[in-house]
Amino acid sequence: MQLLVNPSPEKCKKNLARPVHKTKQINKIVKPILKKVEKSGDKALRKFAQEYDHVHLETLLVSEQEIQSAKDLVSKDLKEAIVAAKQNIERFHAAQATPELVEEVMPGVVCRRKSVAIQRVGLYIPGGTAPLFSTVLMLGVPAKLAGCPEIVLCTPPNREGKIHPAILFTADLIGITKIVKVGGAQAIAAMTFGTDSVPQVDKIFGPGNQYVTAAKQLVTRYGVAIDMPAGPSEVLVYADETAVPAFVAADLLSQAEHGIDSQVVLVTPSEKFAKKVLKEINEQLEDLPRKDIAYKALANSTAVVMEDRNSAIALINQYAPEHLIIAVEDAEEVVDRIVNAGSVFIGNYTPESAGDYASGTNHTLPTYGYARNYSGVSLDSFVKKITYQKITAEGLKKIGPVVEIMAENELLQAHKNAVTIRLNSLKGKKK
Amino acid sequence: MQLLVNPSPEKCKKNLARPVHKTKQINKIVKPILKKVEKSGDKALRKFAQEYDHVHLETLLVSEQEIQSAKDLVSKDLKEAIVAAKQNIERFHAAQATPELVEEVMPGVVCRRKSVAIQRVGLYIPGGTAPLFSTVLMLGVPAKLAGCPEIVLCTPPNREGKIHPAILFTADLIGITKIVKVGGAQAIAAMTFGTDSVPQVDKIFGPGNQYVTAAKQLVTRYGVAIDMPAGPSEVLVYADETAVPAFVAADLLSQAEHGIDSQVVLVTPSEKFAKKVLKEINEQLEDLPRKDIAYKALANSTAVVMEDRNSAIALINQYAPEHLIIAVEDAEEVVDRIVNAGSVFIGNYTPESAGDYASGTNHTLPTYGYARNYSGVSLDSFVKKITYQKITAEGLKKIGPVVEIMAENELLQAHKNAVTIRLNSLKGKKK
Repeated sequence: MQLLVNPSPEKCKKNLARPVHKTKQINKIVKPILKKVEKSGDKALRKFAQEYDHVHLETLLVSEQEIQSAKDLVSKDLKEAIVAAKQNIERFHAAQATPELVEEVMPGVVCRRKSVAIQRVGLYIPGGTAPLFSTVLMLGVPAKLAGCPEIVLCTPPNREGKIHPAILFTADLIGITKIVKVGGAQAIAAMTFGTDSVPQVDKIFGPGNQYVTAAKQLVTRYGVAIDMPAGPSEVLVYADETAVPAFVAADLLSQAEHGIDSQVVLVTPSEKFAKKVLKEINEQLEDLPRKDIAYKALANSTAVVMEDRNSAIALINQYAPEHLIIAVEDAEEVVDRIVNAGSVFIGNYTPESAGDYASGTNHTLPTYGYARNYSGVSLDSFVKKITYQKITAEGLKKIGPVVEIMAENELLQAHKNAVTIRLNSLKGKKK
Repeated sequence: MQLLVNPSPEKCKKNLARPVHKTKQINKIVKPILKKVEKSGDKALRKFAQEYDHVHLETLLVSEQEIQSAKDLVSKDLKEAIVAAKQNIERFHAAQATPELVEEVMPGVVCRRKSVAIQRVGLYIPGGTAPLFSTVLMLGVPAKLAGCPEIVLCTPPNREGKIHPAILFTADLIGITKIVKVGGAQAIAAMTFGTDSVPQVDKIFGPGNQYVTAAKQLVTRYGVAIDMPAGPSEVLVYADETAVPAFVAADLLSQAEHGIDSQVVLVTPSEKFAKKVLKEINEQLEDLPRKDIAYKALANSTAVVMEDRNSAIALINQYAPEHLIIAVEDAEEVVDRIVNAGSVFIGNYTPESAGDYASGTNHTLPTYGYARNYSGVSLDSFVKKITYQKITAEGLKKIGPVVEIMAENELLQAHKNAVTIRLNSLKGKKK
């Protein structure tokens, strides 16, 4: 981890720049995958399962029996933990529901707005070394709360053609029944175009490797929506001497273990504190199973000593971290001045991992600086908000002339006529 | 307008298919424009003003004096209409504000969610034949209500290098002071990369021709967000014999006059009614200043007689219209079953043009079937919703073990450690 002391804004910007996506090369691999799935559907999915997952699949859909047997393979402890996390996530996401809005803006002119579920949603859960059942909770719980009638979950099988039982248990707990053994860019393609096994969806959610991310970006051309653009996961910790170096080190490491391209940043007013954290990192790193990954991620990471609080906050807002831990005196005062962040963790006893799993907030958050202009996944992500208006004859008499004048001045005579013809009819005129 | 009577779903789908975007050709023109603005900033903008707007501009920024003189050039009637429309739009959008959410999901585990304004937003207002001051209201009012600190408005100048006074009056009324004379793809590029005259923004809003639309889609690669993907504007009217053929015809024409690629659809249970509407369209069309445009749009449009209400509603939800007028008996029963639409207009006295200008709902709505997965512009479009969590030592004792078990099972040991190290410290253990 590089240590910068009171760097210039330019130096900061340079050091904290995110890695550049190598879109071109990846798109070259992903585009033919999309084409093949569009053309050959399930047949292409089976071929890709053979090629990438090294497994021959007769049936892509997970059977009811597979789901039932999975339940016995998950430990009681883990089941209880998943149930507890689900409760918190459910509680916080249910509280996000927007009640129907009804506003009579003028007598006889009533405007309404209502949340309506996106009808068909696709959840992508990555495979690989770790079974991300926590992501099943983070996407499945709000999808169910929103009332999405059709939910499909795609996740790659292992070499035995199986899905990790914790993923199946979690999906079943939420009430997701359509689970398909398909991963990678081909899963994204399948949900975009639809195949015999995978229904076409309106919106695709979920994290993934660079191929999945590229595929999600590409399929937006075909009318499907995605949760958000994605880059590697990241945390910025803002801590002063009231924080505990060992805790801060543990938080930075928990991000660093995600991947070698993870972004890890420490901002602190104290050089002494920074050095303590760096020392702790080196000590804790030794015992980690994923220490090689964490080591590489840390090699590209930066600790910034920024004595001036205003400059520190400006730096944070400029960086727009996905996860922001604030462990300083007067943390709430700092919190109020944060305008760009995905999710914020306040105080010494709020590790990022609490939010990753169980505090109730969503862990699908904007990375790569997108916290400037995107929110994390929430109940909102699974609904559209449709507006309605109903105008009475009396209401139209009031608002009509306003519309007529404006339409006429925008040179849209037919827009004006749609009002005039109604007003004339109310006056008893022929036209 | 083609008349289909009880067509099959396939026939409907084919007839109501939206025109295909010619993305490739347009991107070929737009990409070099983006590059030039990125490289040469204002210099490129001046060059493009000469080339496309046929005007030499010394200063790109609209001066305070230009804004002040514009006020005298707008008629009293129009000013009053704009003020009245603004009040309705303000009232309905202010009511959309999401209060801060605070939820103690477990004792000692508090989650919060707060709307925070997107800091820098860019509003694009097209030029061309009509001065779209109504769009200034639709984008500017929620941007101000959301509290976006930096708002820039870009709009192309006429051949005299001037902006239409109604646009300047409306912007000033809302309190937008940074107005730049730049249009087309180059305006989108300027807001993406920033130039001396145009600040870089986080999110770009607003309609435009196919070059602007293509540019908006392309610049999302550079980290900027956009309001939504866009296609030609469209209306679907669902009307039965309780509706007034002349009103329905006027509504269809008000959409048809937008552009030759506008989408206009009538769905009705009665062939007799459909024929009355078609007759009315032919009569009303004759008197329209934009009749050539409307005529061409109607040539590609369809009236569908669908006797069965369930089939009609399925058709509407499948089409997912930007604007949906419902003028049937039991309109509210139909409204409740609409799951895909941008904005809905209910009853015989609610023309689409009321919503286009003054009812209070937003007129920036998802076209091209995107009503399946996107909402129209609202107050939400100008904020991010940041989540927060604050856990006390007691709270961590409760939630910590849940996180530990889940992290361990996802093979993320460092995630677990971030909790364990804190719990151990609370127990008085060293590590």
